[in-house]
Amino acid sequence: MRIYDIIKKKRDGNELSTAEIEFFIKGYVDGSIKDYHAAALCMAIFYVGMTERETADLTLAMANSGDTVDLSQFGSLTADKHSTGGVGDKTTLIVAPIAASLGCIMAKMSGRGLGHTGGTIDKLDSIKGFNTQLSPKDFFEAVKKTGIAVVGQSGNLTPADKQLYALRDVTATVDSLPLIASSIMSKKLAAGAHTIVLDVKHGSGAFMKTPEDAEALAREMVKIGKNCGRNTSAVITNMDIPLGNNIGNSLEIKEAIEVLKGQGPEDLKTVCLALAAQIVSLSKSIDIETAKTLTRDSLENGKAFLKFKEWISAQGGNSQWIDNPQLFPVASIHHEIKASQSGFISHMDTEKIGISAVIAGAGRETKADTIDMSAGIVLKKKTGDSVNEGDIIAILHTNNKISVEGAEKKFLEAITISPNKPESKPLIYKII
Amino acid sequence: MRIYDIIKKKRDGNELSTAEIEFFIKGYVDGSIKDYHAAALCMAIFYVGMTERETADLTLAMANSGDTVDLSQFGSLTADKHSTGGVGDKTTLIVAPIAASLGCIMAKMSGRGLGHTGGTIDKLDSIKGFNTQLSPKDFFEAVKKTGIAVVGQSGNLTPADKQLYALRDVTATVDSLPLIASSIMSKKLAAGAHTIVLDVKHGSGAFMKTPEDAEALAREMVKIGKNCGRNTSAVITNMDIPLGNNIGNSLEIKEAIEVLKGQGPEDLKTVCLALAAQIVSLSKSIDIETAKTLTRDSLENGKAFLKFKEWISAQGGNSQWIDNPQLFPVASIHHEIKASQSGFISHMDTEKIGISAVIAGAGRETKADTIDMSAGIVLKKKTGDSVNEGDIIAILHTNNKISVEGAEKKFLEAITISPNKPESKPLIYKII
Repeated sequence: MRIYDIIKKKRDGNELSTAEIEFFIKGYVDGSIKDYHAAALCMAIFYVGMTERETADLTLAMANSGDTVDLSQFGSLTADKHSTGGVGDKTTLIVAPIAASLGCIMAKMSGRGLGHTGGTIDKLDSIKGFNTQLSPKDFFEAVKKTGIAVVGQSGNLTPADKQLYALRDVTATVDSLPLIASSIMSKKLAAGAHTIVLDVKHGSGAFMKTPEDAEALAREMVKIGKNCGRNTSAVITNMDIPLGNNIGNSLEIKEAIEVLKGQGPEDLKTVCLALAAQIVSLSKSIDIETAKTLTRDSLENGKAFLKFKEWISAQGGNSQWIDNPQLFPVASIHHEIKASQSGFISHMDTEKIGISAVIAGAGRETKADTIDMSAGIVLKKKTGDSVNEGDIIAILHTNNKISVEGAEKKFLEAITISPNKPESKPLIYKII
Repeated sequence: MRIYDIIKKKRDGNELSTAEIEFFIKGYVDGSIKDYHAAALCMAIFYVGMTERETADLTLAMANSGDTVDLSQFGSLTADKHSTGGVGDKTTLIVAPIAASLGCIMAKMSGRGLGHTGGTIDKLDSIKGFNTQLSPKDFFEAVKKTGIAVVGQSGNLTPADKQLYALRDVTATVDSLPLIASSIMSKKLAAGAHTIVLDVKHGSGAFMKTPEDAEALAREMVKIGKNCGRNTSAVITNMDIPLGNNIGNSLEIKEAIEVLKGQGPEDLKTVCLALAAQIVSLSKSIDIETAKTLTRDSLENGKAFLKFKEWISAQGGNSQWIDNPQLFPVASIHHEIKASQSGFISHMDTEKIGISAVIAGAGRETKADTIDMSAGIVLKKKTGDSVNEGDIIAILHTNNKISVEGAEKKFLEAITISPNKPESKPLIYKII
């Protein structure tokens, strides 16, 4: 078998065999197939696409290119949740305890924030004592004890995907649906859960800008998951507006606690319940309406909150902070951002709002940056709300005085105020 | 400027600017742009194509990426001839002296043979004393003296093309018309001649298999040449049959001498006169009919032959061998290849015939191989001829007894004998 023939076959619009795809991934990881071969092949895939079978084969080959997490000791109730990334997206913190309180096993790896989106691991790191770097042994013990553990990515997971993604990133071959979907799903397959529920976001704060594009990606990923023997579904949600009101690491933990206590913003609660219901329904093979009732009950009767506290304690976190969120350090500067005119907020450029929070210290522009755990934004008004000139739209939290002007400017750039109330967009577009 | 943006722009079907193409070629040669960038870009070009302007810009950028030959001291009558490669193609040996005898300046670099096609430099090397490795000074002096010099490629000519071609060869991105055309034409531009006449071949012994494909390539190259300020035309010729009867280095020199003496096979003479007339017409700005008369006269009145002898002497060749071709060493084995059945030769797979000659010792399978100058094939029958079982179709010349069986087998594989006379194909399909 020769990589030249594989590139040419795909270039000419033909379907690659399983053996050819495995040969490519194996050779790319061991160095016998070079970056220039992979770049040519990815560009051919950009134009020609891949069949459902090819995409599943590519995903499996990448998933098996390095370490994989063996969750078989936990039986068939293992579940994972993946978000394609957004602003104010703290759903894992709420969904995992709801699902675990109903018997699902949430043994999960999460990422750190980069650019305008935050990361679950950073958020958890804002809880005093919480350890996101458990050894495999401690990880499995935490799961056994509480049904949840969330750690940062460790080990040599999906090296083929890492290598291929880095290459695609510099050769303009990222924007290919089968390549995007296989990249995400290879990590999910390697992470070992039997059920995978995807939160595919669309809008100004998301990778996919339109609901249609998000749906196409969701369908591609669900097909891969099913073809690779996992229960898989996707909830397509609106990220044309931040999720909830709080953006920033400890601010988001506090908002998650509010929801787990039965309070908190409705949009966040709705998305979390939709995701949790999918997890419970798929992993326990029960109908979705029953799953919805169970998850809502868990949130309302406090079981989810108890599970959250158990989880935080099991990973070394100080549960007093959970009971008393006022213990979280607070930013020294609370700067009010005000409406410059009267009308309705007709649009929030959510990516820009995320960047505003990064400027305030809540995120990283490059991997080397450090995070101010207490920095961020608390929204007082959102899309569809009416405002009068001078009304407070948001409060900027920061410890860095010189960042205030830039963060406020970026935030105000993100806000459009118009005379008419905008049409409201559905929070959940579709469930696939 | 970033190569990422250039790849993405082309990927999305847009036209690159002159500055972007120059940035790519400059960066690729200096190493700041990597093979994987170039591979992705070439694959995008494979699908999207390039406009006439882009193709000319790419050709010029590659032509100017290294050394160029400055022929300005010879005025505007400098001319070059390029063949896309074939079997038995000894036209340069005949065309150059005809054109030079009429005042054109043929200061030319040629290649060596590889695979099934021969190379002019190897053929000239079979003449005792002939020096194909002149220094630049000696090259220019030979041109001044006789109006012709033909040397092997030297110096750092078109490094960008060399680098890009080597990459395309391993990434399945050779088969792109603008990339093929710009690769060939970049070398012609760097070689400095003001007039460029292309012999674009089609058929079983050529790179382009059909006349239509050859025409498309010819049109692309002629456009490039004109857009880059050179007189350019292309003669599309038939390589579904070897040109002339002799294949092999000294065998081809001897056949060229026959034609220059007013004898030799008609097909070879016809193609040579067509190419020479184009050169004379374009470089001297005279009408094609007058050019045809002049070139035919030069061949018939012996001026072309005299010019050939002057040229060979000027480059150190022994002109006695030209007057007495029986002085060329002759292969020790002359093996008759006979028809296995009666009928008409309906097809000659010309690539296979070329390979048969290589097996006999006339060419190289790899760059490291050495050539037996006297080895080759003399055809006694060609496509369209009738044969009886046992008739001699060809005589294999070799000094290597053990190669005979393999060379004969390959030759006979190439020959199709059918009951009916095949339709004859035009020797010259079109002139562009």
